[in-house]
Amino acid sequence: MPAVDRPERRARMVMSSLVEPGDSDACRLVREHTAVELLRKLRSGTGAGSSKVARWMQRAAIADEDGLMHAADDVSARYVCPGDDEWQPALDDLERLESQPGERRGGAPFGLWVRGGGRLVAMTGRCVAVVGSRGSTPYGEHVATELAFESAGRGFTVASGGAFGIDAAAHRAVLSRDSPTLAVLAGGIDNLYPVGNAKLLESICAAGLLVSEAPPGCVPSRSRFLVRNRLIAALSQGTVVVEAALRSGALNTARWALDLGRGVMGVPGPVTSRTSAGVHELLRQPGTLLVTDALEVIEHISPVGEGLAPRKSGRVREMDLFAEASRQVLDATPRDRAVAAESIALVAGLEAEEARSQLLLLQAAGLVVRFSDGWALAPP
Amino acid sequence: MPAVDRPERRARMVMSSLVEPGDSDACRLVREHTAVELLRKLRSGTGAGSSKVARWMQRAAIADEDGLMHAADDVSARYVCPGDDEWQPALDDLERLESQPGERRGGAPFGLWVRGGGRLVAMTGRCVAVVGSRGSTPYGEHVATELAFESAGRGFTVASGGAFGIDAAAHRAVLSRDSPTLAVLAGGIDNLYPVGNAKLLESICAAGLLVSEAPPGCVPSRSRFLVRNRLIAALSQGTVVVEAALRSGALNTARWALDLGRGVMGVPGPVTSRTSAGVHELLRQPGTLLVTDALEVIEHISPVGEGLAPRKSGRVREMDLFAEASRQVLDATPRDRAVAAESIALVAGLEAEEARSQLLLLQAAGLVVRFSDGWALAPP
Repeated sequence: MPAVDRPERRARMVMSSLVEPGDSDACRLVREHTAVELLRKLRSGTGAGSSKVARWMQRAAIADEDGLMHAADDVSARYVCPGDDEWQPALDDLERLESQPGERRGGAPFGLWVRGGGRLVAMTGRCVAVVGSRGSTPYGEHVATELAFESAGRGFTVASGGAFGIDAAAHRAVLSRDSPTLAVLAGGIDNLYPVGNAKLLESICAAGLLVSEAPPGCVPSRSRFLVRNRLIAALSQGTVVVEAALRSGALNTARWALDLGRGVMGVPGPVTSRTSAGVHELLRQPGTLLVTDALEVIEHISPVGEGLAPRKSGRVREMDLFAEASRQVLDATPRDRAVAAESIALVAGLEAEEARSQLLLLQAAGLVVRFSDGWALAPP
Repeated sequence: MPAVDRPERRARMVMSSLVEPGDSDACRLVREHTAVELLRKLRSGTGAGSSKVARWMQRAAIADEDGLMHAADDVSARYVCPGDDEWQPALDDLERLESQPGERRGGAPFGLWVRGGGRLVAMTGRCVAVVGSRGSTPYGEHVATELAFESAGRGFTVASGGAFGIDAAAHRAVLSRDSPTLAVLAGGIDNLYPVGNAKLLESICAAGLLVSEAPPGCVPSRSRFLVRNRLIAALSQGTVVVEAALRSGALNTARWALDLGRGVMGVPGPVTSRTSAGVHELLRQPGTLLVTDALEVIEHISPVGEGLAPRKSGRVREMDLFAEASRQVLDATPRDRAVAAESIALVAGLEAEEARSQLLLLQAAGLVVRFSDGWALAPP
């Protein structure tokens, strides 16, 4: 895809302030006709017809283009478009979902407002989304912190939504090790929402990136959060839901990730916890994977054969390495008294000769002791 | 399969005291040549050759047949064989696994010692195994209690291993509602092991069944627990692991259930809990299902279309039922001050006319209030 030229870029910035973020009709029209052309029509009053286009015209008539550019300059925001060096082509995967039935669908964005020291494409080459409940528990925050910290330590950017709870825990953990993190906002990138996270979002901006489809000045709203979620899913190779109640927005992000064919993972919790109920419901869906740590997350989102997590297997006990007959003899030998090898053989279901040779091996290993009247297990 | 006759039944009882429980060679030989014939050979000293057969001969030479029958009579035990009315044919599925490679395999049992008021086939028609760690936590015991109590209330027998921890919690919950439960023991059914559960096992016997492949008098051992586990898996339509550390024996039961094509389920817990680590590892395997309550368990092990659990979806909020435009208007309307419909339309990205009609609808629903200077959200 060739980079867009200056007039087209400026027209897209203006378009982003006329249409709802993620409006799939707008995305398609810009892609097919250019924003320059679309804007010209909206301003000249031609090409109306649908009520949606009428709304855009209404907004276009009063759009403050210079104000928008100043607001962007004030926070050193830039506008990144498909075809730009900084563009993440993985975002174009959203085009596949545009025509699917169902409301609240979003299109492949025609540009993104970004703000911060990071570069979008570089930051999202290896990227995992860690999302979850705003009303998280200390358990969930602990797990989100661990996951994000360890993922960042292995070279993965952590993307999230900048919200309270799990999102904030994940961003903070990454910042604590001076690694980059990326927050995708539902409102404008100059609108540090929620206010309680303003300092956190400033830190994210300094060390990483704030990203939004909405123009500077835009306030977040429920429907904007939902279309925002598709960007979090599209920008990462996989989404991990740490804690989520049954109706959590984090599950919406996971749904987008499933639809996009990205990795979808969940961290379980107690079944008695309401904030884990949504994760458990997610993990009952095909195509999802239960994860317990960052190594398992990275294994799942890495190309086949890379990033393999060590299989969890517990401590191997000495006894596990023994032959079946040795184990049977050990099982059959009492600790509290000595018994004859023949009795041990009978209990173990072995021939006396075999039991005797096993007892000698086990004696050499220090696991059984020979007394004048027979054999007993060595003290623990 | 025809019922075995009296001499064959008695010969199998004796065979059960000569061979290790689950010995697949013994299972196959009895099936192919009858226990009467096998025992005759062992006693006449013919047919030796393999060291295993030599062991059986050694034991056959000193077998106390009358003592065995008395021990069984003393606890009112009976011996149930394939082809008997009481036999559970699902046990014969184990035949499929006999020839698979790997050690510690067990065969399809040629008979089972049972003790108690229940009838094996009737009790296991609808049966779920609830198994888990002996070193359980209060969380695991709580969940096991809930699962077992609710499963029993829906007509399912709960099978387990009679051990401390999860097993005991499951058995106890079922007994508390006077429903039948079944314990499969690794030692003889007269050997109430562990001693600390003796009273519990007596109650299980009174209200349900104790089952074992091993003869009266047999002591449990590590290898006997492992072959015992296959009977728990085979007797139930599905196995739920409630809590299990990475090397828990409960995972061995789950493995048998997977190999048998039975349902394999796990109850998650905190990823910070060692006693849930084995369950989580299990739930990362294909063919397993995360469950959070008895309804989900029953849905999974019931025939397709039966026992469906209600989909967990949380409370549906009034707002979810609204059209997109209504939600956008609600999102765009402030609570703390009144604003003109035109401003709301602009924020919502709607035409003024559409916003006005939505506001009127929302007013009728009592969700927004009209003031002289505009609209505001109704107080919560």
